Amino acid sequence: VVSGAFLAIDWGTTNRRIYRIVDGHVIDTVRDDRGVTSIAAGGYPAEISKIRTMHGDLPIIMAGMVGSNIGWRMAPYIAVPAGLHDLAANLLWIDDRTAIVPGLSLLNDHRADVMRGEEVQLLGAVSAELVPDSSLLCQPGTHCKWAEISDAKITDFITAMTGELFFLLRNHGLLAAQLGEDVTISAAFEEGVDAGARGDLATSLFGIRASKLLGRRGDRDASSYASGLLIGADVAARLAETEHPMVYVLADAALGGLYVAAIKRRGHSARLIDSHDAFVAGSAT
Amino acid sequence: VVSGAFLAIDWGTTNRRIYRIVDGHVIDTVRDDRGVTSIAAGGYPAEISKIRTMHGDLPIIMAGMVGSNIGWRMAPYIAVPAGLHDLAANLLWIDDRTAIVPGLSLLNDHRADVMRGEEVQLLGAVSAELVPDSSLLCQPGTHCKWAEISDAKITDFITAMTGELFFLLRNHGLLAAQLGEDVTISAAFEEGVDAGARGDLATSLFGIRASKLLGRRGDRDASSYASGLLIGADVAARLAETEHPMVYVLADAALGGLYVAAIKRRGHSARLIDSHDAFVAGSAT
Repeated sequence: VVSGAFLAIDWGTTNRRIYRIVDGHVIDTVRDDRGVTSIAAGGYPAEISKIRTMHGDLPIIMAGMVGSNIGWRMAPYIAVPAGLHDLAANLLWIDDRTAIVPGLSLLNDHRADVMRGEEVQLLGAVSAELVPDSSLLCQPGTHCKWAEISDAKITDFITAMTGELFFLLRNHGLLAAQLGEDVTISAAFEEGVDAGARGDLATSLFGIRASKLLGRRGDRDASSYASGLLIGADVAARLAETEHPMVYVLADAALGGLYVAAIKRRGHSARLIDSHDAFVAGSAT
Repeated sequence: VVSGAFLAIDWGTTNRRIYRIVDGHVIDTVRDDRGVTSIAAGGYPAEISKIRTMHGDLPIIMAGMVGSNIGWRMAPYIAVPAGLHDLAANLLWIDDRTAIVPGLSLLNDHRADVMRGEEVQLLGAVSAELVPDSSLLCQPGTHCKWAEISDAKITDFITAMTGELFFLLRNHGLLAAQLGEDVTISAAFEEGVDAGARGDLATSLFGIRASKLLGRRGDRDASSYASGLLIGADVAARLAETEHPMVYVLADAALGGLYVAAIKRRGHSARLIDSHDAFVAGSAT
């Protein structure tokens, strides 16, 4: 979105990642827990000065929740279809070298959806030719985004609260005590993917408890099964709606690997794309 | 399960209800918050003495989580099909006038399920002729039970974590701030029922936030929509599997009314049955 030397910040709710970029190359990057919920109202100018002191006195472009009503200032939502040039044309300028990227919105008779921050990664992956300019992208996370790309624009997208549901189940409620183990791509995970594809989550989830009580599945496998269940429901619903045989998954290897495994289990192809490369490409275009 | 004068206790995780029953009639009943999680290990004999001092020195029959591994003593699970006589034949006798009703279990190649406490209400509804002896019963709650009754036995059942999911969403996570209003049978509830029937919960839930941000639905309607979504998913999945045109709903009028509305919205008939009457009938048989 800007060129030359600059700082790009992927500034989320609980974390942020700062990239120093020169001529499209990342010179250094640092991640910390100074997400928008840890910045006091009115604290952003001082925070930005500190960032420039630490990382260089450069133009700054920010994306993510920093542009929401819990961030610094509310950047607009741009309706899809939208490409990188639409983002660049709708930057919220704080001053002449500090800007926030707008979010994207979708609103029709059937549903409403929004994204804020993910659009830079998604469109960056296209501009860096990490993915074809017409493709289906999946960005797993707390709120998993699925985006349809046509002619290098996001034309449609949908958000699933998959990661958040897993977090809620793991930290609160009946199943929390059973879901302490790490998730692995295992037979239990694949069993979960198959069950999730039936789209009947509330009963499959109770089955985790009943299976323990009746000796059918131990807690060693419960996390993997539950993760497979949620990811499987997400993946099956999306694959039912697409013509694309291939899904490009933008994520780190651990979470992205789970989605790739689930997508392949459902008979589609999947390829993991490095999400940091995609963000940098999106910021630098 | 026993006759004459006795005390029946529906003893759950967080609450319990004590009935004094003489010749099949409830003489008095009291509900309090002395669920099993508030009784110390080893505290049950003293608790039972206190109950007999307050309500009468009578035989006691208990059902629910009091018979689980977090209760007084672990009563067995009896595999379905099972009727009231199977429960009576498998009582866990603490002493010669104090007994715990067994739970029910289902275990096959596809799934595992359990219930503990609900079986008395379900089979009580049949024995009191509140419902036909071959019918589909729905018992909404934290963990909603759906039971197939044939020839006065429970032959199949399934549990949906519908109420718990609503609780988790309402008390933790992204949507909590939006879900403070009471649930009403409204256009928003029915819209939720329709969306829930598509079986794609994780995206419909995120839509609650996006709809607020884009001005499509206010927080006044968000609780009703979310409740409709979860109940609609539960109801649609069950109705897809049944031949019964009618569902008998065992619940209080508020929660039961939501299920009755959702079932009718999905094109089936539904009738609300008083769940206390059913429990008493089950205990007294």
